[in-house]
Parts: sequence; C-alpha cells; structure tokens
Amino acid sequence: MILTKKITIQAACVFNMLFFGINAFAQQPAEFVNPLIGTSNYGATSPGPIAPRGMASISPFNVAGAQNRLEKDSQWLSNPYVNENTFLTGFSQVNLSGVGCPDLGVILLMPTTGAVETNHLQYGSAYSKEVSKTAYYSVNIDKYKVKGEFTASKRVGVSKFTFPKGQSNILLNLGLGLTNEEGAMVKVVSSTEIEGMRTVGSFCYNSPEDAYPVYFVAKFSKPADKFGVWKKTPKYEGVEAQWMGYNGKTRMMDNTIKTVVGDSIGTYFTYKFAKEETVEVKIGVSYVSIENARENLEKETGNKNFDAVYKETYDEWNEELSKILVEGGSYQDKVIFYTALYHTLIHPNTLNDINGEYPKIKRTKIGKTTGTRYTVFSLWDTYRNMHPLTSLVYPKQQSDMIKSMLDMYDENGWLPKWELNSTETFTMVGDPASIVIVDACLKGIQDFDIYKAYYAMLKGADQTENNPLRPGLKEYIEKGYLSTNYAGPVSTTQEYNTSDYAISLLAKALGEKDDYKRFTKRSLSYQKLYDKDLKLLRPRLANGKWYEPFDPEAGSNFQTNVGFIEGNAWQYAFMVPHDIKGLMKLMGGEKAFSDQLQKVFDIKQFDMANEPDIAYPYLFNYIKGEEWKSQEMVKKLVREYFRNEPKGLPGNDDTGTMSAWLVYSMMGIYPISPGDPIYTITTPMFDKVTIKLDPRYYKKESVVIEREINSDDKIKQIQLDGKPLNSYFISHDAFVNGKTLKVIQY
Amino acid sequence: MILTKKITIQAACVFNMLFFGINAFAQQPAEFVNPLIGTSNYGATSPGPIAPRGMASISPFNVAGAQNRLEKDSQWLSNPYVNENTFLTGFSQVNLSGVGCPDLGVILLMPTTGAVETNHLQYGSAYSKEVSKTAYYSVNIDKYKVKGEFTASKRVGVSKFTFPKGQSNILLNLGLGLTNEEGAMVKVVSSTEIEGMRTVGSFCYNSPEDAYPVYFVAKFSKPADKFGVWKKTPKYEGVEAQWMGYNGKTRMMDNTIKTVVGDSIGTYFTYKFAKEETVEVKIGVSYVSIENARENLEKETGNKNFDAVYKETYDEWNEELSKILVEGGSYQDKVIFYTALYHTLIHPNTLNDINGEYPKIKRTKIGKTTGTRYTVFSLWDTYRNMHPLTSLVYPKQQSDMIKSMLDMYDENGWLPKWELNSTETFTMVGDPASIVIVDACLKGIQDFDIYKAYYAMLKGADQTENNPLRPGLKEYIEKGYLSTNYAGPVSTTQEYNTSDYAISLLAKALGEKDDYKRFTKRSLSYQKLYDKDLKLLRPRLANGKWYEPFDPEAGSNFQTNVGFIEGNAWQYAFMVPHDIKGLMKLMGGEKAFSDQLQKVFDIKQFDMANEPDIAYPYLFNYIKGEEWKSQEMVKKLVREYFRNEPKGLPGNDDTGTMSAWLVYSMMGIYPISPGDPIYTITTPMFDKVTIKLDPRYYKKESVVIEREINSDDKIKQIQLDGKPLNSYFISHDAFVNGKTLKVIQY
Repeated sequence: MILTKKITIQAACVFNMLFFGINAFAQQPAEFVNPLIGTSNYGATSPGPIAPRGMASISPFNVAGAQNRLEKDSQWLSNPYVNENTFLTGFSQVNLSGVGCPDLGVILLMPTTGAVETNHLQYGSAYSKEVSKTAYYSVNIDKYKVKGEFTASKRVGVSKFTFPKGQSNILLNLGLGLTNEEGAMVKVVSSTEIEGMRTVGSFCYNSPEDAYPVYFVAKFSKPADKFGVWKKTPKYEGVEAQWMGYNGKTRMMDNTIKTVVGDSIGTYFTYKFAKEETVEVKIGVSYVSIENARENLEKETGNKNFDAVYKETYDEWNEELSKILVEGGSYQDKVIFYTALYHTLIHPNTLNDINGEYPKIKRTKIGKTTGTRYTVFSLWDTYRNMHPLTSLVYPKQQSDMIKSMLDMYDENGWLPKWELNSTETFTMVGDPASIVIVDACLKGIQDFDIYKAYYAMLKGADQTENNPLRPGLKEYIEKGYLSTNYAGPVSTTQEYNTSDYAISLLAKALGEKDDYKRFTKRSLSYQKLYDKDLKLLRPRLANGKWYEPFDPEAGSNFQTNVGFIEGNAWQYAFMVPHDIKGLMKLMGGEKAFSDQLQKVFDIKQFDMANEPDIAYPYLFNYIKGEEWKSQEMVKKLVREYFRNEPKGLPGNDDTGTMSAWLVYSMMGIYPISPGDPIYTITTPMFDKVTIKLDPRYYKKESVVIEREINSDDKIKQIQLDGKPLNSYFISHDAFVNGKTLKVIQY
Repeated sequence: MILTKKITIQAACVFNMLFFGINAFAQQPAEFVNPLIGTSNYGATSPGPIAPRGMASISPFNVAGAQNRLEKDSQWLSNPYVNENTFLTGFSQVNLSGVGCPDLGVILLMPTTGAVETNHLQYGSAYSKEVSKTAYYSVNIDKYKVKGEFTASKRVGVSKFTFPKGQSNILLNLGLGLTNEEGAMVKVVSSTEIEGMRTVGSFCYNSPEDAYPVYFVAKFSKPADKFGVWKKTPKYEGVEAQWMGYNGKTRMMDNTIKTVVGDSIGTYFTYKFAKEETVEVKIGVSYVSIENARENLEKETGNKNFDAVYKETYDEWNEELSKILVEGGSYQDKVIFYTALYHTLIHPNTLNDINGEYPKIKRTKIGKTTGTRYTVFSLWDTYRNMHPLTSLVYPKQQSDMIKSMLDMYDENGWLPKWELNSTETFTMVGDPASIVIVDACLKGIQDFDIYKAYYAMLKGADQTENNPLRPGLKEYIEKGYLSTNYAGPVSTTQEYNTSDYAISLLAKALGEKDDYKRFTKRSLSYQKLYDKDLKLLRPRLANGKWYEPFDPEAGSNFQTNVGFIEGNAWQYAFMVPHDIKGLMKLMGGEKAFSDQLQKVFDIKQFDMANEPDIAYPYLFNYIKGEEWKSQEMVKKLVREYFRNEPKGLPGNDDTGTMSAWLVYSMMGIYPISPGDPIYTITTPMFDKVTIKLDPRYYKKESVVIEREINSDDKIKQIQLDGKPLNSYFISHDAFVNGKTLKVIQY
C-alpha cells in the first residue's frame, strides 16, 4: 500500500508540473471541485469520476440493503449513491447525475475477498475514507480491507483495487441495479476480458417498450486464476419443477466462455494473491454494440494505466473549468462555484461511440456523427439557464447539442422534450427545445440548419393532432389556455407561452412577420388565466369558469394539484419571463407587482429546489429602485442553499440547472428571459470573473466581470468598459463584445 | 396454392430424373422413409426434416396447451411433437430425436394472420394434412389458412409459408420451449434478418450449471413491412411496482434494432399481402456464436431456395440410405426398415460449424476440427447395436465419432457417458464408451490414436476416487460388485463387467497381457451376484448378504427399485453378453438356461422398449437345436412392435437404438456381444440385402445377405459364399470379407 501511495503522489506531482501550468493561478479550477456536493438532500449527483460530458461514469452504489437510510426499493430514489447511507454493494459504471427519476445505475463492479458470494445483501460492506475529487474517487471497503480507486475517460470507467494477500474476487453484477428494469447478457471472453449488455430504461416508469441496452467490455490488468458466471434462476411451480433440484437456486458456472442471459446474472474473477496486489479493471461502454464498447475501450484507454487515464481526464476537466476563471472570493466560494460549473458539464453528455456511431431515437437505426451526439436533455429544467450558460461559455458544445436535437427531429419527427439515451421519455410539460435553440441562435450560434429548426418548432407549435410535445394544443390555440381537462393546465399554458415567445423572436429575426405576430400574440395568452382578485394565475374549466375551490398554496413540495406541475399558484405566479412588464401591468403596476413578488418569499412559497420560480429573486430588477432586493435575495439564497457539503444543493440538481443558477448568480449575471439574449445583473461573488470566449463564435477572447466593493451594501453603479450602463440588464451582444462589466458598490 | 403445388410436383419430377438414378431400384430408399413412425407411444422421434446427422432440424411443436393429450408441463415429456396431440404452437428449430429427457425444442417459428398475438395459448392452432417424408414436412395451420413446408440442411432449417391475402405474421418465439430452461437474446438486424440465442440444457434435470446457448440467425426471403420484438416481463411486488403501469405486461417494441434479453421474448415480422404469397425463412444455428450461425446459413444455403435445399438434403439422405439396399420383402417392410436406418442416422449428430468450430466440453474453449465433431452420445443405449451398425455401414462416421469421444477425453479428462452438445450429463450408468471404441477398433476402424483410447479406458476403469464414469468403482474392484449402497448396483456391475470385457479384448489385441488377464477376470464378477436359487442376479448388501425382501419382478416398466436401473432381475438376468456360456454353466446347463430364458418371455417380463434385454431373443442361438426359437421370437417381435404408423416403435427410440435393433434384425444378423466382433444370425426379412462397404475400411465393395425360403419354417442351413457355415455365429471379419451370407429355409 505504501509503495502504491508513493507512486500516486509522484504521479500527482508530475501532473502539477506538466499540466497544471495552464495559467498563473496558484490552484487550478479542477482542484476546487467537490463531487460530494449534492450527494445528499436528494441532490442526486454522483461522487464518482466522469469525464466532461462523459458516457461512462463510476458511482459507488449504496442504495441496496435495508441497513441504508434511503433504500432504492422502498421509495422513489433516482440515484445510486446517497451520502448518509452506509452499506456499499458495488460501483455502477453508467449513471445519471441530478435527475428526478431512476435510470442506469447498472453494471456493478465489486471487490471482495474469501469465498465467492453472489448475493449483494451478503457481500455488501461498510466503507470508509472516501475521497471524491475531479475525475477520481477512492474508498476503503471495510469488510474486505480492499481499497478501491476510480477514474474514467469519456466512455471507459477505470477501477483499481488494492487487495490484501489471499483469495480476492472481482464481481461484475448485472442483476442488481438502480431500478426494476432487468435483463442482461454476459460472456467471459478470456481470463482478462468480459463482454455483455444490460437492459436499462423505463425512465420515470414510462415507455417500458423503449427500454434499451447498454453494452460493455471489461478488461482486467491481471488474468484471473479462476472465473465464472453466476445465474440466479426464477423459481418454477408445477409438475416439472419437482424434478428440478436446482429450482430457484443460483448456478455457479466456472470457467465457461458461453453466453449467459438472465435477470440475475453476474461474473466472478478470482485471484489467489501471495501478497498485496492491485488489479485494474477498464470497462468500456456503448449504446450501439459490444464491438463499439471494445473499440471505445481500446482507443480511449489502450495501454494506459489508471494514473494515465486519471491524468488525462483531470486535465480535460481543468481545461473546461478554466473557461471561467474567478479571482478573489473565499476558498469555499470557489469550491461551490467550480463544483457547480462541473455539474453543468455532465449532462447533456456524449452518446456516440468513438467511431461516431449512436442509436437513433427509438433504435430503429444506427446513426453516425462526425461531431458529438449529445443525450440526456432534461429540457424543462435546462432551458432556463443551463443551455444559456453553455451558449456563453461552451458554444461549440451548445451547437452540437442543437444539431443533436435536430437529428432527433429527423429521426423521430419531433424535437426532444426529455430525451435519454435516444429514448424520448416525454416527461414533464411544455415544448422547451424551441427556447433552447432560439436562445443559442440569437446569441450567435448559428452553424446549424436554422430553417430546419424553425420548421421543427412550428410543427411542435402548430400540429394540433397527435402532437406528443404539446398535448391540448388545439384548446390552447383556440382559447389561449389549457383547461382543467389537461394535467397542470396553467403551468403548461405558461410553458407554451414561453416557447411561443421564443418562436416569435426567431420568426422576427428570420423576417417571418406573420409568424412573428402570431406567436407574439400566443405568448401572452397566459393573461386569460390571470385572476385579478388573487393576483395569481388560476386554472379554468373548459367552459371558461374558474376552477373551484382553489387553494393557491396547494401543490407546494411537489404535491399533485389541479392547475400546476410540480408547484402551485405562487410558484408559477411570475413564470412569464418574457412578459414581466405585461404581468406588472396586469397586477396594477410596480408597487402591486413588488408586493406580490415579495409575498412569495414572505409566505415561504418560494422554492429554491425547483425550476418554475428560480428566476424570481431577479425579478426585483424590473422595478427601478428595488434592484437591491434582488442583490440581497440572490446572495441570501446562495448562502442558504449552496454549500461545500453533501447537502450543499437545494435539491435535485436537475442535470445542472440548480448548478447553472449558482454559476450565473455568483458571476453576477442571469439569463432572465430564456430565448431573449439578455442578462440581468447582480453583485458578483468574486472580485473578478474572466469568461474565455470561443473564437469560433465570439469576436473577443474573453469578457471580464469585476466587482468593486467599498461597502457591504447595494450596487451603486454598473459600468461597461468604464462607462455607466444605467441599467440592470445587458444584452448578450453588448456583454460579449465589451471588455469589462464592472459592478460597483460603495 | 394450386400454382405452388404444381411447381413442387414438377421439382419432384426433376429430382427423380436427376438424382434418383443412383441405382436400378424402382423406388429409392429415401422414398420409403416415414418420419411419423415413433411419433406416438413415447417413441420421441420427430416428424420434421433433418439432414443426416444434422445439427438443425424442424419439428412441429404441439405439446403446449391444455387441449393437448400430452402436455409438456404436466408430465415428463421429452419431445416437442406427439402425433395424437392437436394444438400446434410453432415449429422448433433444434430438436432431439428419441431421447428420454427433454432438451432443445426451442426457437419456435409460427405463422399467423391478422393482428399480432404473442401468447402461444392464444395464437396456437389446430392443424391438418400433415405430410412427413425424407427431408420434408408440411402441414396446414387451420386457424390461419396458412400452409407450412419445412426442410433443412445440416445446420439450417428452412421454412416456407404460404399466406392468404391480408396481414400475415411470422413469429419467432424464444420464450416457449420444451423445458423449463429459459433465457434468450434477440436482435432484429434488418427487415429480413434476426440474430440471437436461446439457452437450453439441464438435460434430465441435471447439471443446470452446464445450461448452454444455441445461437441463430434467421433470414427472410421477403422484407417485413413491420417488425418488432416482444417481451413479457416478470411481475414485481413492492413499493416501486406501484409506479409501473406496465408491471407484468407484454411490451411490444416496434421496428427496433436493439438487443433484447429475457425469458419470454420473441420477434414478429408482419406483412401486408395483396394476394396469396409465400415467405421462406432460413434459420442457421450454431453452438459457438451468432457469427458462425450466419456463416453456416450463408455457406450451406446461400441463395438456394426451399426446393433446392430440399433436393440436396433428400439426395444426401438417399445416398446414405442406399448404403443398404434391400430387395424382396413387402412395401411396409421396406418402410419400417429404411425409416429405422434413417433413425440411426440422426444421432450422434454434427456439433461443429461449417468452419470446424465447436464448443469444447464445459465450454471453456472453442475447438476446431477438420473432420466432424459429433455430439449426442446416448452411449448406455447405443453401444449395444447402433454403434456396431455404424461401424459396419458408416465406418468413417464411426471413426469420427471415436475421435470426437477422444477429444472429449482430452477436454474433460474422461470419455463420454451421455454427452449432449458438449455438456456431459453423466446420465445412466456404466462406462459404455470403451465398448463402442473397442468394438469399432476390432472391426478394423483404427485410424485414431488407439493407445490414447486405451489409456482413457483404463483411467475410467481404474481410478477409484472422483471417477464420474464409474461411481462405486472401489467396491466393485474389491468385491466384484456394487452393493446396495449404490443406485442400481446389479445393473451397474453388469455394465462394468461388459466394459471390462471390452477392455480385455483391446488389451489382448495390444499385447497388454496383464491388463488382458485382469480385465477378463473383472468381466466375470457378476457371477458373485448370481442367486442359484432364483437363477437370477440379485443385489447384495455391503456386508455380502442378499438384499431382502427381494421381488424379481419389481422394477418392470421403469419403476425405481433396489438393484436395477430401468429394469428388474428378469430383464437383467441375461445381460452378460460376453459370458453367455458362463451364465449357462451357472444356471446348470443348456436346458436350465433355455427354460429360464423362455420364462422371461412367458411371464411377460421381456421388455422390447428398453435396452437391457433387447438381445435376449437372440440368446437361443447359443443352444444347439433351439435357434428356431430366436428366429421365431425375432420375427414375432418385429411384427408386434415395429409398424408403419406413429405407434410403430416399441417405445423411446433411444437415439436410434430401437431402430438399429430393427435394421439388424431385418437383415438377419445381430451384434450379440458388443465389443466382440461377432454377429449371430437369424432369417433376414428380405430376399436380398446388399451392404455397401466403405473402401477406406473394408476390402470388399459390398457384402450380401440372401435368404432362400422354401417354407415358412426355420433355418435349415447357413452358407457363406456357398459353403455351409455350420454356426449361427459369424465373425465380422468373415462376414465383410465374404461375398454372400445365405440363409436357407426349406
């Protein structure tokens, strides 16, 4: 162990010398990342290693077994690791980060010692000494005195186990997984290689027919002394069963190279070590085929050892995270900032194999891309800030994401809504892809077929029959709103309005005047749901009458209610980001608007943990003289909900949406109206924020946000390149073409 | 339909002209085959097409569904087709013939019409107009008005469906199968191709850990208008299940090319036909890989259509069956004779793919052969006559079978006992491989490593610890018999004696004098179990005392009993074929022996349906003057048990053993003491039997058996090449080096 540690330390030193010298910072951005943030309080993030937008990742799996506080089968649980749990049953090789439904969390590697035990409830272990950092996770598996270390390249998870002397085993459990979805195939190719697949899917318990395979190839650095496959078969009833002495028992199939399929299957690789030894296991994955998984493994990690893979991925992360350099601010602030930026760089993630192949939507064909095919589009969440952030800092990625969305349109006939590994789950409401595309397009990312995108948007917005994106569209177009005949009719109307507004912006830019007018009008129809007595939006019946009895507070904490999706009337009251001025007018002017907005917070209806109201703290910027409230509120929320600890996210990260909120908020700008290329401004939480701009999309090399604080008070002036801005809003163009945005408090 | 029929008739005519002209017979041997023989009365043969010693075969599958008289799950049933059943649920693509335990009977093709239904109990159908002949089976599937026709090459099953106008479907059900063994994988490659695997095994409900995959590729002559995969998932309990609206339901996965695994899965290929149309489906199989299944399909059937494959296989059968030409005798006699010969040419069958690859025993590696790797060695049955027949008529096949057995020894450390698709099932008792090898060797088949074979035999005969072939060997060597501490101790002692005798013969031939003496002595130890009061063999306790109370008749009809395996004291009384003279002496001479032998028949303890006593009718040949009893008995048994009808086998064909008995008996010779190259003689049932001899092993081109009957009486003289033989026994050498063996009755 001591020797190994020395080597690791030396290797780390070499990293520092060779790779950490990108800029003049004492500490590199990647060093501030703490992946444990969000691994409690239902943040649903993973403490394990992943490459930026990687397909493979490794997560400790500690949600099986009744000894765990949060047990996967006893409740709705969407992640394979919960920080306060204690019973570890393996390390899953494909995982989602910050999603609200369980999926993936399969292909579980587990080191054990002694006789081979295949029941995870038996072989599971307590664990200790977790280390979680960029591209690296390690833990001691107490029961076996085994140390596990983990890293990953984009499509390959790499595990390194340090075993004590004696019999050691590496189990690959293809039965145990995060969800009820089952079915696997495995074949031991040799004493150093395994290939197979595992079925996953039925995300949010929807679309079971779209359940899909993840293929893998595992390579071991040392040949096993013995290997085998286990299979636990179902228990049969009836006449024939009486002759089956093995009925319902686990079969141990030693040293076989046959293909084994089943629900509860796995492999064991066994070693007899005369002294402490390490074994490295590389697991390449693919959503196309075993062959591609093998090619991914070979081309990405070839003969590289654990340390070499770790170094490369660490370096890649550091480069990505260095696109925003922050100066000043506390260590803790840097940790939460860079961890948040890290969390925005996980999803959407890469779907295509290294040879460009990927499964098309519905898996009717294999596609091939020369760029990156992205997947995991939780668009109801991410249209609000994650994609706008990507457009600003990683525009090439955003461009490829849009191209991926348009390819999905080609494949499926519709833009995505909640796409996951080429299954369209149609989860949540609204038609958010349009907003994402328009937002990027109007920010200058235009290297895609804009007219195709436009027509795709129009199809989603106009096809009233058999439209999977916009249920109730006919009623929406006719009445301006969805009635209570539909689920969450108010929320959905608001979402459609927001999308229609985005479409109107693109129509305007394209000179499509009729569409521009039509969609501008459509985008304001939420007003028909405005109850001037309540000063809130309220569901209407199909006959136009208000839904009665109506409790505006019903539906907080994700309770189901008539009117709203994952929220209530207060949480949705201001969710018309494109028409805040119009809403203000409806409410009776600035004062009434301000009072009502303040009330959301005062009566504790503001929910930092879900998307509908997360922009609200910034809405005071619309009221001249009350901007300080936004400054105060944002600062307060950052301090209250975002911390350097496992509970350091307000709730589910929603594939980086909560984290993107933090990144923006700490930089002092926020994309207040997705689709509109505009930011609103608050006090940055660092002295200086330098955003490097991609020369393929932006003229300037970088843009800087500075703060000058002479008091712990409110903003007194905002300057762009030394000149007063006289506004708490700045266009994207002005921002990226300026040099320095300076926020002055004195 | 009429058109199709015309073409078939024309094609058949072409066959006749081109291919049936091998010799001067009016009717070709292959025309006499009726594969329906043995498909009732538990004969367990298949009415469907197979090539000689083919890997693939197609059987109508009519043993699922309560409407069937014999239902697979309600009893021990070892075959997928029973003639008196009525409810058809598909056509299985790999099948065993004449075995006593269920295995294979999977990959079920089924044509339907109308909406796709995936539950076989729903889509099953009555059927009519069965036609079963060499390499061809056809049937009308009444419910759908579809005609199915089937043929096969060695590794490819070919199906041809004639559909009416409208929606037609071809289902490939990978869930339904003959046994409880489950687990499959499937992937639709395109609208004309499917690939996958199905798990089979656990033969006789043994060795579940050796369950193994059969891989396949299916190609369709017409692209499906729509295709998909279905999966019926298990029903989950618990908290999570409440969110699964699809819990336990069948998923229909349209037009997907993803890999699907599961227990209850299948594919549907759907067509919309504007008029009556045919679709041909070729299914290549392999026990190595999908790639090999595809290569088998392409190389064996390429672009050949149904008729071309049928023609080739028919011709191959005709050539094989023409190795014995019979003249005189009735049509019915020719039918039962050639069908029996056909049944001896099914197992052992080919295991290797066309590229020579096959799975080694226990599937630890893939082997490669330049010859044929044979499988399905039901040696407890077949050593008695099937292998001796193969040595005589198909010596090259017998040689390759021995080489396969020696390869198994190399792979597994032991000669086979009951090998099935490279799983050693260790079913039944005894060590019969030695007998098979010695018998062939002493008949002149010596193109294998004889010393390796000899040492392999010695290992099985001498290794007293951990010997899977000969349980109880230590006691057997020490005491000369197995005590009642072991299952079927008397039978097993007799089997070991018989094997030891064979080994002694080889030892003698090799000049291994010590072994010769030792094994000769060992081969007679059954005498210690001779109860002179009963004149029967009787089980002893470990302390040497007779087992009490002892009922010699207990154990008939396969009932379990202390002492005997699948039989009783009467059925085993004479099963020391190598020491009939010794037994006669024990019994007190010819008269006592004759009386006791006659008694077996008189008290109805003779069982034609199982192996231990099937040579008994020939034992009267050992008593001078009583040979006529053998002649009468054999004739009577042939007439009683072997008929041209589904019930036309006495019972389970035991991979051709019953059929080999018939072939020999109708030719007028019988290998009375397996291992000993000797035949005993009775009246042939044809005027002339010409056995073509393989010039690679025999000097003469052929040998003839003739009869000259001037009365319906007993044999008066036997002549070899015109000279009186003066014996009812003839050595193999004398027989094959003679020209004509003539049996004269007058």
